[in-house]
This record gives sequence, C-alpha cells and structure tokens, in this order.
Amino acid sequence: MYNFRNDYSEGAHPNILQKLIETNLQQQSGYGEDEYSLQAKQILKQKIENNDAAIYFVSGGTQTNLLVISGLLKIHEAVISANTGHIFSHETGAIEAVGHRIITVETLDGKLQPEAIQKVLKEYTLRPHVVKPRMVYISNATEIGSIYSKSELVELSTFCKANDLLLFMDGARLGNALMAENNDLTLTHISQLTDVFYIGGTKNGALLGEAIVFNNKSLAPDFDYVLKQKGALLAKGRLLGIQFLELFKNDLYFQLANHANVMAKKIADAVTECRYSFLSDPVSNQIFPILPKKVIEQLEAKYLFYQWKEIDAENIAIRLITSWATNEEIVNEFIIDLKEASNKNVHQ
Amino acid sequence: MYNFRNDYSEGAHPNILQKLIETNLQQQSGYGEDEYSLQAKQILKQKIENNDAAIYFVSGGTQTNLLVISGLLKIHEAVISANTGHIFSHETGAIEAVGHRIITVETLDGKLQPEAIQKVLKEYTLRPHVVKPRMVYISNATEIGSIYSKSELVELSTFCKANDLLLFMDGARLGNALMAENNDLTLTHISQLTDVFYIGGTKNGALLGEAIVFNNKSLAPDFDYVLKQKGALLAKGRLLGIQFLELFKNDLYFQLANHANVMAKKIADAVTECRYSFLSDPVSNQIFPILPKKVIEQLEAKYLFYQWKEIDAENIAIRLITSWATNEEIVNEFIIDLKEASNKNVHQ
Amino acid sequence: MYNFRNDYSEGAHPNILQKLIETNLQQQSGYGEDEYSLQAKQILKQKIENNDAAIYFVSGGTQTNLLVISGLLKIHEAVISANTGHIFSHETGAIEAVGHRIITVETLDGKLQPEAIQKVLKEYTLRPHVVKPRMVYISNATEIGSIYSKSELVELSTFCKANDLLLFMDGARLGNALMAENNDLTLTHISQLTDVFYIGGTKNGALLGEAIVFNNKSLAPDFDYVLKQKGALLAKGRLLGIQFLELFKNDLYFQLANHANVMAKKIADAVTECRYSFLSDPVSNQIFPILPKKVIEQLEAKYLFYQWKEIDAENIAIRLITSWATNEEIVNEFIIDLKEASNKNVHQ
Amino acid sequence: MYNFRNDYSEGAHPNILQKLIETNLQQQSGYGEDEYSLQAKQILKQKIENNDAAIYFVSGGTQTNLLVISGLLKIHEAVISANTGHIFSHETGAIEAVGHRIITVETLDGKLQPEAIQKVLKEYTLRPHVVKPRMVYISNATEIGSIYSKSELVELSTFCKANDLLLFMDGARLGNALMAENNDLTLTHISQLTDVFYIGGTKNGALLGEAIVFNNKSLAPDFDYVLKQKGALLAKGRLLGIQFLELFKNDLYFQLANHANVMAKKIADAVTECRYSFLSDPVSNQIFPILPKKVIEQLEAKYLFYQWKEIDAENIAIRLITSWATNEEIVNEFIIDLKEASNKNVHQ
Repeated sequence: MYNFRNDYSEGAHPNILQKLIETNLQQQSGYGEDEYSLQAKQILKQKIENNDAAIYFVSGGTQTNLLVISGLLKIHEAVISANTGHIFSHETGAIEAVGHRIITVETLDGKLQPEAIQKVLKEYTLRPHVVKPRMVYISNATEIGSIYSKSELVELSTFCKANDLLLFMDGARLGNALMAENNDLTLTHISQLTDVFYIGGTKNGALLGEAIVFNNKSLAPDFDYVLKQKGALLAKGRLLGIQFLELFKNDLYFQLANHANVMAKKIADAVTECRYSFLSDPVSNQIFPILPKKVIEQLEAKYLFYQWKEIDAENIAIRLITSWATNEEIVNEFIIDLKEASNKNVHQ
Repeated sequence: MYNFRNDYSEGAHPNILQKLIETNLQQQSGYGEDEYSLQAKQILKQKIENNDAAIYFVSGGTQTNLLVISGLLKIHEAVISANTGHIFSHETGAIEAVGHRIITVETLDGKLQPEAIQKVLKEYTLRPHVVKPRMVYISNATEIGSIYSKSELVELSTFCKANDLLLFMDGARLGNALMAENNDLTLTHISQLTDVFYIGGTKNGALLGEAIVFNNKSLAPDFDYVLKQKGALLAKGRLLGIQFLELFKNDLYFQLANHANVMAKKIADAVTECRYSFLSDPVSNQIFPILPKKVIEQLEAKYLFYQWKEIDAENIAIRLITSWATNEEIVNEFIIDLKEASNKNVHQ
Repeated sequence: MYNFRNDYSEGAHPNILQKLIETNLQQQSGYGEDEYSLQAKQILKQKIENNDAAIYFVSGGTQTNLLVISGLLKIHEAVISANTGHIFSHETGAIEAVGHRIITVETLDGKLQPEAIQKVLKEYTLRPHVVKPRMVYISNATEIGSIYSKSELVELSTFCKANDLLLFMDGARLGNALMAENNDLTLTHISQLTDVFYIGGTKNGALLGEAIVFNNKSLAPDFDYVLKQKGALLAKGRLLGIQFLELFKNDLYFQLANHANVMAKKIADAVTECRYSFLSDPVSNQIFPILPKKVIEQLEAKYLFYQWKEIDAENIAIRLITSWATNEEIVNEFIIDLKEASNKNVHQ
Repeated sequence: MYNFRNDYSEGAHPNILQKLIETNLQQQSGYGEDEYSLQAKQILKQKIENNDAAIYFVSGGTQTNLLVISGLLKIHEAVISANTGHIFSHETGAIEAVGHRIITVETLDGKLQPEAIQKVLKEYTLRPHVVKPRMVYISNATEIGSIYSKSELVELSTFCKANDLLLFMDGARLGNALMAENNDLTLTHISQLTDVFYIGGTKNGALLGEAIVFNNKSLAPDFDYVLKQKGALLAKGRLLGIQFLELFKNDLYFQLANHANVMAKKIADAVTECRYSFLSDPVSNQIFPILPKKVIEQLEAKYLFYQWKEIDAENIAIRLITSWATNEEIVNEFIIDLKEASNKNVHQ
C-alpha cells in the first residue's frame, strides 16, 4: 500500500541526514545558540530580505501556533481564523488552553478575506463583554490546498494594519504555496506583508522543524522566554539549525516543494483527462478529485488516502497529498490504475 | 426615561436590605461558614429535594460559569453551547481563559437538542487532534427568553448520560423560567435531570448572588479550593447567605420572578392586541416584539430598550426586559403609549 | 464568645446600609457605569490628587490580586513578594493559576526592602531558563501588622523604577496603615510612589469591595476586559460604588480604621502594662502579644483569637485583630480579664 | 576549548543516525503510531517488567514536566519539589504557566525526604486558602549529581501512598543514576515505586527525546490529548521511536551512561589524588570539585565549565559534566593539566 494520506510519512531529505552525521561530534552550544542555527537564521534573513527579523526554530506546527499566539496576545485578546484553520480544526484546543478564543469564519476556499474579518469586528464590539479581536491567522497553502495571491495578501495586510490586527501566516506548507503554478508571492513579500509567519520544515523534507519569523524583532523581544516556558526550546537546537541550513543554503526547500507540487499536478492532469472534477482547484500538493465510488474502491486496494467529502450518492471527493518524497514511479502507476478504473467504471 | 433594557437596574428586594440591617452586627464566621449561608443551603436542599447536593454561593453569572466549567473539566475537555449561550456571547472569553473550548451550535430558539449535540460528537472524533466534548451548557430561561419543557430536559439528560456528557444549566433567569405560563419543570426536576445548575439571584431580587448546585456532592469534592483560587470566595459570605435565605425561606424568589413575567405578559398582550408579532414566543421576562420603526422611535422618547434585530426595511424586533422591580404603573403607561403610537402609525 | 480573629465578622457600617436603602429603586446603568460608582471614583481621584488614575471596584482581595497581576504581567513574568504576602500564603495558588510564579523572599517584619529584591534579580538572570521578575508586591499594612514608612516606600519605589519593576501595593488594610500612630504616608504619596495599589473596603466597613487604583491610566487601558473575563464585573456595580461613596465622601473610611487602631492600641497598652512583649511592634489593628499559656487559656474561655506562634515552652504569641466594629466595652472587659489572668499567673 | 559544561554538546550516538538513514524512506504512520515507536514501547515495558504501563515519547525535559504535571493535577493542586529541582530552577515558570504552584523544600543534597514533605503537608492545611499538595517531584540523578538509593525510594514511595501523593521522577539523567557505582535501583524498581517517571534520551545519546512512563495506564487515560494540546506530538514520531529503539534494544542506553560516569570518575579520582574535596559526593556524571581559584584559572584556558559556588576567598566549586560522547583522551589530558596546575599552585 502506498500512502497518499499526508506529507510526513517518510523521514528527511538525505542531505539533512548526511549533514547530521558530518557535524555529529562537533561540540556546540545548546538551546539554539549553535553555529548551524545562527547560520541558518542569517540565510533566512537574506532570503526574506529583512535584517530586522527575529527567527526561532521549533519542533512542530501546533507548538508554533500556540507559542506565537500566546506570546503576542494579551489575555483578553482573540485570534480570527477560517473554520478550516488548523488552530481550530486539528490542534486539540491548544490556543484555548493558553487562554485565547479563536473566532471562526466560514469560507469557501479556506482563505480569509477582509469582508469576513470586518464582519467579525462588527460582532465583537460590546466592550467589555466580548473578547477583543487582535490577530488574524491564515494558512498558506491553506488546509484545503488553496493559496493566497499577492493582491489578496496585500489587501489583507492593509486591512489588518488599518484595524490594528496582527497578521500571522501559518506556513506549514509554505513551500508548496510558493511553488504553486499560479503563485506570485515570494518570501520577501510575505515578510513585508505579515507581522509573523512560519516556514514549515516538517512537511517539506525535515525530520521536524518550523522556522518562526517575526518580521520586526521588536514585536516579541522576550520570545525566548516563551519558547522555554512552553517546552519548545530543544537542548540540541543544532538538530533544527542543521536542517534549515541544508534546506535553504541551496534552495533545496523550494526544489522539494516543487517536486511535491509536480507530482500532484501529474495526478491532477490525469484526473482531468478522465473528465473528473475537483472539490477545489488543484494548485499545490493537496488535491481533492471527485471520483465515482467504484473508482475509489479500486484505488483503495493499492493506495492509502482519505475520503474527504461525500458529494452525492455516487461520488466522493478524496484527498491526495504528495510530498518531497513521493515516488514518481508510483505516481505513474497510480495514474495508470486511475485510468483503468475510470474506463472500467464508464463501460459498466 | 424608564429602563426596560435589563433586569438589574435596581437594588435588592427590601426584605433583603431589612435583613442585612437586622443581622448587621452579629459576629459570624467568614468565607461562607456563617449561619445564614448554612441555613440557606438547608432550605435550598429541601426545595430541590436533594440532600446529596453541594451548594455554593457566589457573586455573578460569569464567575459561576468559569468556576463550574474549570472545576469540572480536564484540560483537554470542551463544553458544548448554543451560539447564543452567555458563555460564548457575553463573557469575554472567560471559559477560554481557563483553558477550554466552547463548541457552538446554531439554534433557532436558543435551546440545545440532542440532535445538535450528536452532530458535534460526530465532528469531534479525530482523537487526539480535537478536544473532547465533555459538558453540555444550557440556559433556562435562555438568553432569548425561551424555556425548556420537562420532556425536552428529560431527553437532553438521557442523551447526556448515554454519551458521558455532564449537563450544566445556567439559571441566571431560572425563576423566570420556572414561573413561565407554559413551564412544567420544578427545581426538583432540574436537580434530578442535570449534574449541576445555578439559581440566579442577581437578576431576581438580590444585590448580587448565584447559588451553584452540584446535584451530587461527589462531583466536585474540592470545589471550595476552586472558589478561593478564582477570587470568588467572599470574606463576608453572610452577604450571599442572607439574600438566599430571604429569597427562599418564603418563596419570595418565585413571587418576584412571577411579577417580572406578569409584567412582560401584560406588554406582550398589548403588542398582540396591536397586531404586532414577536421574534420569539413571549413566555418569560424577555420579550422581542417586532414593531414599525416609527412606533419604536416614539417609544424611545420615554423608554430605554435595545433594538435587537432589523427584520425588514420598516420593522425591527426590540427587546424588552421586565424584572421583580418593574413598576406596574409604568407598564400601564407604556401600553398606552404603545397603542397610541401604533394607532398614529396605522393612520398616517 | 467575642471574636478577635479577624476584621470581617460583622456586616457594614450603618451609613452604607442606609444609603443602599435610600438609593434602592433608582434605576442605574449596570456593570460599574452607575452614578454612585462614577462619583466615588471622582472623590477617590481627589483624595489621591491624581486625575490620571484609573479606578475599578471589585469584590475582594484575592480577586483584586489576580486581576492586577494577570492584567499587567506577560506570560513569562513573575511577581516578587514577601513569603508572608497574602498572594503567596492565603490565596490557593490564584496567581499561579493565572500563570505566574511568585518569587518569595523571607522577611523579619513582612516588609520588602530593595536589598532583598536585588538578591532576587541576581538569582533570576539565566535568561531564558528562568522567569523574568517584573513586579513587586507589597502589603500595607502587612499581613503581620507592620507598616511602610514614607522613606521606605520612596526607597522601594526608586529601586523599582531603576530596575523596570512595577510596584503594586495590596491595601486590604490600607486604612489601618494610614491611621497608624507612626505612619507618615498619605494616599497621595502612595499614588505617587506605586504603579498600582488597592484600597480595601471589605475589612474596613464595607460589605465587600476593594478599589483598584492604576496611578497612570495608560498602564492598563484594557483592564475592563480583564475584569469581565475573570468574573469580577458585578451587574449591580452600584453596590460597590455606593459603599466607596459612603466611605470616602466624609472620610468615614479613615475614622473607621482609626477606631480599629485605637481599640488595638488600648489592648496593646494593657499588654505592656502587664509587662508582656510582642512578636512585632503593635502599630495597626493586628497585634501579636506574647502571653503565658495559662493566661491564654483563661482568655480563650471568653474570646476567639488565633495562637500564632509558639515562642518557648511557656509562652505563645497570639494574634488579636480589631475592626471598625469592635465594641469598646468588650475591649475594656478584655483588658480587665487580661490583667486578672496576668495577676493570677504571676501570683501562682 | 573542550566543553565540560553540559551533556548535550554533541549530536547522537552513531547507531541512531545509522538507523535514521536505513529507515528513512519507509512510509510510516504519523503521530507516534509508527512501528519503531510501537516496538520501542514494547521493549521498554519489558525492561521495566510492567505491561500495564503507558509510554509516550516527547522532545525534551521541560516539555515532559509540564505535560505530566498539567495532565495529572487538578487546577488547585500543587507539586512539591526540592528548590534545586529543575521544574523550579530552570524551566521559566513552565509549571506555573499551566496553573500549578511548585512548593519548594530546601535540601542539602538535592533529594527529598519524607520529613521535608511532611512539613509541607502541615503547612498547607488551611483549606481552602492554600493549594492542595498532590504530587512529589524528584529527580534521579538530581540536578547536583546525587542519586536515590532503593531504600530511600521505598521510603518515599510508601510515604506518598500513605498521603495520597503522586510520585513523579524526572529521569533526564536516569541512565547516569542507574549506572552510578553506589546505585541499587533498577528500572523495574522505579516502575514499581513511582506513579510516573521519565527516561531521558537527550542527555544520553539521543538527538532529542524523553520516554514518559505511566506505571499504571489508568492514571492518565487521555494523555494523548494533552500531548497534542501542548504541541508535544511530533508528526514524525518515528524520530523518537527509532532513537529509543536503538538505545534500548541492546542496552546501548546503559553503556552510554556508564561511559559518562566512568569519565567523571576518572576526573574525580584525580581531584582526590590532588587532595581537593567536593561540594557533593561525586557519584554520577556531574561532579563539583572545590579548586583553588588559580587552578581554575589555568584550566579555563583550555576547558569550558561552570564556576558553581564560591566556597571561600580562595576556593570555588566548579561543575564538570561528562557525557556518552566525552572523549577519553581529552579526559586524560584534563587530568594531566589539573595535576600540573595543582602542583604549580602548591609550590608557589
């Protein structure tokens, strides 16, 4: 069985493991003060073209989200998110556990627009009987594979600034967003348009690791305390530093994300060829083809993936995720299997 | 200007003030161990016919809700509420601030039904990536004036027990619910059908005060610690004890709630007479007449009330609240003014 | 049995009850926006000679402490307190429950000095592995009856400013401190020398109520949200406003505190006459005479008080607390009984 | 400069890195459901001879401590620790940040005894004005290198059971404790005598990783939720599973800890030979020789270590830590340098 369920089924890119071995016995300072972490931060600052940034490496996405939100919000402040947002849908109340409400907004495509946020601001005015909305949380790519365009992000950023809202981008799959065919954003844009964002490593070639970027270091001058308090400061911070160094020193990060996207695109093209449609536009490494149940059944004999949403009596949208490690031969095989199942289904 | 905006615009029933004066210089133990509190608890246990109950007096509704929820839930557990529920709509994130998610459900009438809760349970199954629903929070009367029937509460209670959910009733306006015309619940039923509920004093004749009732004292054996930790344990607990003693020793509590309901009914009848309708059935002390804007404008010259919801270009639902202290003469005056405004509006 | 155990055994000063009755049916805005609260705040601002202050009325001391500390500190910041400080010794972890460490310091007399704080600052430098000390909590009068002199408070204030520490004075017994014989501080000094303090009502004539004073309103611009979130915002805020109005409009507050101190002084003088000593200087309404066990035994037949600390095989320090309500006749009786017991003890 | 400051200056034991490479492209379930984690847990259950245990792998010690304590304690409950305990001294208020007080006890040797705990229990009785002590936290080896004997742990365990206290052992350096010369405890004993403990990987050959062991799985049936909520559940849990598998499948864990101890012993013997003494008995991989300042100065030219405590005008206790990775040649060199410096010092 081959697994298309997620993008964290394999270990790390071999370069990373190689570097871990090479550097293994070099004595280094602990807690993120090792030379690899310092170098990786320098490289990232160059990539985002922002020397005022403050960068921290941590272990995972939920950890990142709770650190950033609890580090930036006061106790009566809330964060606005799409109801598909990871902080609301898949983090076991991590944000509430550090004291903050997530105000959710329904969206069609997982993306937040100023109008939706404006509506929240209007609903939350009965001071002091309601929380104070203070942050906007977005994901790019979103949890359903869509991405923000530059103009969308500019609009959102402008709106947030005008309304004294911090803009936080969850970049668990930022590489996939930036390598999407229709993407027109760069790391530099994101650094200019958000207050804080993170660059996800775990889902793009690292064993673990996310890089939190505060675009203005004065935003969270005491964030090191927060990291330690929440149990996020690794003694051997070198493990995170080495990985981001390897991922970014030669743009391996983008190559890996591109591979994932290209693999998804191949499958998406085959889906289209078979005249099936999608629940949402297939632009990054998560795609949601709507297939006949019989086709799904046949594919399930060889491949693991989630049935995402029942569309009608005969069709279901499934979710397929590709990654930096997705084997192209198996993708080709999957395409053959898909076409075969599709043909069989049509001719029944 | 006469205020129909809420049921806490006046002080306390005179009996209470009288009793405060009478007992003023009696030395008493502090922190709820005074003889008035002990007596009041005894009387309440008789009223609910439950000697196994554990009762605590505290200052207000938000305080009550955060005490009960943080005292009963574990850190990863969540409470289910109507989205009109006070804990979600008007408590400044008090529940999230003690670490818990409120899972909201849309309702037409402010009441929760098993089907809606069942749907939540289905959505929150991806353990451990989601919180664990563990409590159901309902209000009676609800925030929009509706009440639970006995059969509804039995159904809800049965469902909760079957699904290992604690059932918590917010009774900020419990008196008004129990004295509603169509009510068939008693304090005894409520004690049998819920795990914990509270009897609101602040909105029914007290200066301040809510009585939290755990229907089984083993449910929260350490609740005294929680009270103290959250700043809810008054040094002069006598202030709360005396009030509940006065309210319950001769059923003053029910008489006061009845007065509020009767006043609301008088107005509601006049509204009906004028052939206006209601946003929701007028059964307790909160009513929501839908009136022409011109009528509203005229009433606003003499009375304070909230415009609740725009219905169409010409009509708005307003909210009128009566209380134990509502002056019947002013209600009569209001009715005259309403009829006059209505006539004028019709004949324009 | 007459109770010298605490200063909250009786109700409220009669003026307060009278005023509650007089104003009872005046309709007022809720949540602290009533006219009595507004007036009381004006009067207090005059008393402290500080128009920039922001004042809030709440129910009790533990509530006050958790509100102020959680409202002012960031999540990784800590508060420094004497180990006898109420927040550490008698508040059931209220401060830790809102996320903050209390760093304790041993003191001889319940008072904090710069040297002790300096020592803490030196111990808490291993950033980010330790919390960041950010606030100093003092009580005046302290939990053992001592008071701060003006020069001591100036010194502390200067030290705190120099070290970026907020200075918070718990004034649960501020009246008793300010009316102590050797006191040279005024409300105005305190407003100038601290960042935030509170004026305790519960222990000085009120049914309940503490006035939190931020000496610079920009210190906590969103404190109203915090009040509501922690369940501290009373619907009938008038109850608190009326009490502070009565206590301060004619300096009743100071007269009541003075009565308590004078009663304590009478007893203290009798103790001295009997040639007994004290655990700490008797300057406010808490005194700690060291008496022979036999004397204590006799007094315990008629009076309630705490045995505070065993001094040696034959003597124990007891704690006697007087209040605004302490009956002078009983104090006289107590003195007679003390002298009698003392005589008997001497002549045995 | 060679670093004797800590035991996390290097990467991981080569076997671990080798295994990461070998298994790298095996697709595995995420979030700790991978086969390596499952196998590692099986092996650990055999090592502790306890099939009822529930085991979880997480990233670091502070994370472990906050997970266990917040997962097991109710909101009003506290944990008792030596004041040298890591949770109190080096975790940035992590435990208070999840709401719990740490009640500290002074110790001579970093170890808790029943008498000290008994004293705490006596001090914390004024229910409900104080927190409820509910857990005892100990470290083995302690933060100053000492270890618990079997009889000490039996005594402590018995005391805790008798007083309804949970016993939690922090095993960040458990390997070093178990391989100490004078140790008579085994993993099996620890599993029998504590309620929960953890086996530290980070400081003994792993890149990162601690194994939390609940000795009775019914103690924390929902701990998976807690892990996820606090951001401790790694997507690629294989990273932790593989490491514990490698460390325990052939007792590599104990060999590595032994190496560290042996290296420390060599140095300790040399210290003794030079007729210097120790701040505390040198039994595990942390030793605290008391050396003349001039000797220290010379050693500091080549070696990194902490000056721990000034003993008198001429002598300071330093801390030396060895690890699984400590190079024996450098240890030999250090010993030569120490002797040389010592000689020089003596003959000046």
